[in-house]
Amino acid sequence: MTVELISVGTELLLGNIVNTNAAFLSEKCAQLGLSLYYQTVVGDNPERLEETLRTALGRSDVVILGGGLGPTQDDLTKETAAKVLGKELVEDPHTRERIQEFFDVRSIGEIPDNNWKQALVPKGAIVVDNDNGTAPGIIIEENGKIVILLPGPPGEMIPMFHKDIFPYLNQKQPEIIVSEMVKICGIGESKAETMIADLIQSQSNPTIATYAKVGEVHLRLTAKAQDEAAARKLMKPVIRELKVRFGGHIYTTDEQTTLEEAVVQLLKEQQISLTTVESCTGGLFTGRLVNVQGASEVLKQGFITYSNKAKRKLIGVKKLTLKEFGAVSEKTAKEMAKGAILTTGSDAAVAITGIAGPDGGTKEKPVGLVYIAVSVKGNLRVEEYRFTGNRAKIRESAVVAALTLLRTGILETIKF
Amino acid sequence: MTVELISVGTELLLGNIVNTNAAFLSEKCAQLGLSLYYQTVVGDNPERLEETLRTALGRSDVVILGGGLGPTQDDLTKETAAKVLGKELVEDPHTRERIQEFFDVRSIGEIPDNNWKQALVPKGAIVVDNDNGTAPGIIIEENGKIVILLPGPPGEMIPMFHKDIFPYLNQKQPEIIVSEMVKICGIGESKAETMIADLIQSQSNPTIATYAKVGEVHLRLTAKAQDEAAARKLMKPVIRELKVRFGGHIYTTDEQTTLEEAVVQLLKEQQISLTTVESCTGGLFTGRLVNVQGASEVLKQGFITYSNKAKRKLIGVKKLTLKEFGAVSEKTAKEMAKGAILTTGSDAAVAITGIAGPDGGTKEKPVGLVYIAVSVKGNLRVEEYRFTGNRAKIRESAVVAALTLLRTGILETIKF
Repeated sequence: MTVELISVGTELLLGNIVNTNAAFLSEKCAQLGLSLYYQTVVGDNPERLEETLRTALGRSDVVILGGGLGPTQDDLTKETAAKVLGKELVEDPHTRERIQEFFDVRSIGEIPDNNWKQALVPKGAIVVDNDNGTAPGIIIEENGKIVILLPGPPGEMIPMFHKDIFPYLNQKQPEIIVSEMVKICGIGESKAETMIADLIQSQSNPTIATYAKVGEVHLRLTAKAQDEAAARKLMKPVIRELKVRFGGHIYTTDEQTTLEEAVVQLLKEQQISLTTVESCTGGLFTGRLVNVQGASEVLKQGFITYSNKAKRKLIGVKKLTLKEFGAVSEKTAKEMAKGAILTTGSDAAVAITGIAGPDGGTKEKPVGLVYIAVSVKGNLRVEEYRFTGNRAKIRESAVVAALTLLRTGILETIKF
Repeated sequence: MTVELISVGTELLLGNIVNTNAAFLSEKCAQLGLSLYYQTVVGDNPERLEETLRTALGRSDVVILGGGLGPTQDDLTKETAAKVLGKELVEDPHTRERIQEFFDVRSIGEIPDNNWKQALVPKGAIVVDNDNGTAPGIIIEENGKIVILLPGPPGEMIPMFHKDIFPYLNQKQPEIIVSEMVKICGIGESKAETMIADLIQSQSNPTIATYAKVGEVHLRLTAKAQDEAAARKLMKPVIRELKVRFGGHIYTTDEQTTLEEAVVQLLKEQQISLTTVESCTGGLFTGRLVNVQGASEVLKQGFITYSNKAKRKLIGVKKLTLKEFGAVSEKTAKEMAKGAILTTGSDAAVAITGIAGPDGGTKEKPVGLVYIAVSVKGNLRVEEYRFTGNRAKIRESAVVAALTLLRTGILETIKF
């Protein structure tokens, strides 16, 4: 099946917002095995929208329209789609009730008259509930074509897509598609690809696609089969093989879990308290850990020791070490981690010191040189990294490397 | 003049990358006063690209194509554009030289044969140098239409657009367009709009457009005139009036300057050293300051005091204060700031404590409640905030509020 996307919104044409919805929907369509050849953005203009929708219907089996389902007069996606498909708009009593409830629960007060417009749907359409807003999703099947209307706000569209649209599209296909994710840290993309080149080559069901992220590689396995159980059965031996090849580098096989969540989870399970000491990353590493809800259970404190004086005064790095080896050195990183544990009595510490640039580099110590020390229950290790890119990229790379090294440190404690 | 965008790249259709180029180019076109009605994304497929380009040329004066100018066989944007416009491809000696130089400077070694493909340009085209890559930009004028080809990587496209494409498009218009930016912090969008509703209404040259950012409002003034001097002259009295109305809330009138840059600049100018103490933001505030190159001159250290114990041990918040008022309270925020100054001897401190959620809220202290204390040269102030949104949004709002409050604190020191 072929699919195409039409995003409706003048704010996209003015560049006020970035079209992240298109990226999300495209990735999902690829995952579903649908062929997507066009994405189009048009404004809230009925003539241009009509022309765009007619063109799309002429060349694709499925057309997904996003945005323009709001309660205002500018929102005309539904009206235009109904016109193109020759459908009358009728009120959907269930949606009227849901909108009433939506306002009641939130005690927003009286419902503006124009909100009732959102209860109108093309006659015969499949109505999809919106758990996070008033505009419903709408699916229209007509003459072998499928038109899907989705609300524009990502907070409404994404949960709706996961819950109802993905399964709907999946069952429209001759075979069902199921995918699983394997997330890897501590191995670069090209190395990871080399390690499984034979699998990527020889496997056609499931297929394996690699996605490079900063400091991580994500592998998506996608299998086609008559039902979900059969698809999962096809993937099982491949996932087992990936686990053999990548071992402890796999930090999760759950689509939603992030590296920082996996690390906080490990700290919690092992009841390890953590202190951070950051220099070049200046709080970014800790800030990322604190993104994880409940991080406070294991992360008690952190130090940002940007100056040499702070490194000495706050966590006891030796003056001589700084003088002889410099702030960006293996020895300083080690003393930062040791000092953090000594000062706070926590079970583990992560210390990061490096040159994020663009200034401050020398021939011996170029921009991008970063030392990370991790101490977990008395086991101290330090690694040297040479990152590339601009200041922001180097700092982000250092944060991910520190998460990876901390994870390795914890895993080693468990083993022995 | 009407303009439309065509982004070429299979990675966009697969959802591997987000189309930030489209947002950038759309904003610039709006700034130039060009009417943009369509954005299209197609893959590296010559037939579909040809069809898309022909459609675009049929309805728009200017077509900007991005991507597909690389050295590989998949990159066919230039070849397709040349075909549609009936132009022969010929080698541009200047570009050949520039590519040679690009490789020489970077000591990349021998130039792969297929790179020379990038020196071919449609006969009669305007060639635009790429300062950050090998593929040149190309402008073709034909039958009253303009086709512009730009490289896909934002790091190449954006500098090229600023330097050459923006001025080119600007001089193609009957009147030149010049815009200026006024950036405001500490006032919400609706209040800011109310404060200048009369100006927005009455002004048509320059126009004033407002853009809401987290904790900030940006005002873009755009004037049309025969030349730049005349346009700036039109804007001058309006900017003066905006300065009267918003006063110290304006932190910059420079397009590129961020709030954190303005704050670090102020700290540097006033030679004020800073210590940060973060609880719910967990390093994000300091991480954002450290984004600014050279922040180390004024930011010497920071504490992340996530636990009560850390608040007591590291910066001396009183046990009784925590017990009686709680960690999220005006009094604790004050003691955090005072303690930071006492511990480190710095001139200024920022302390942030709050409930980022989703757990931890109570009726008296709901999720989103944040206290920020700022001490600058002995002047201590504390503010209470009630932010809305999810955990990430609340933390981001707190970071921007802290930047704003710190800025206010420094400005007051200068006045008295």
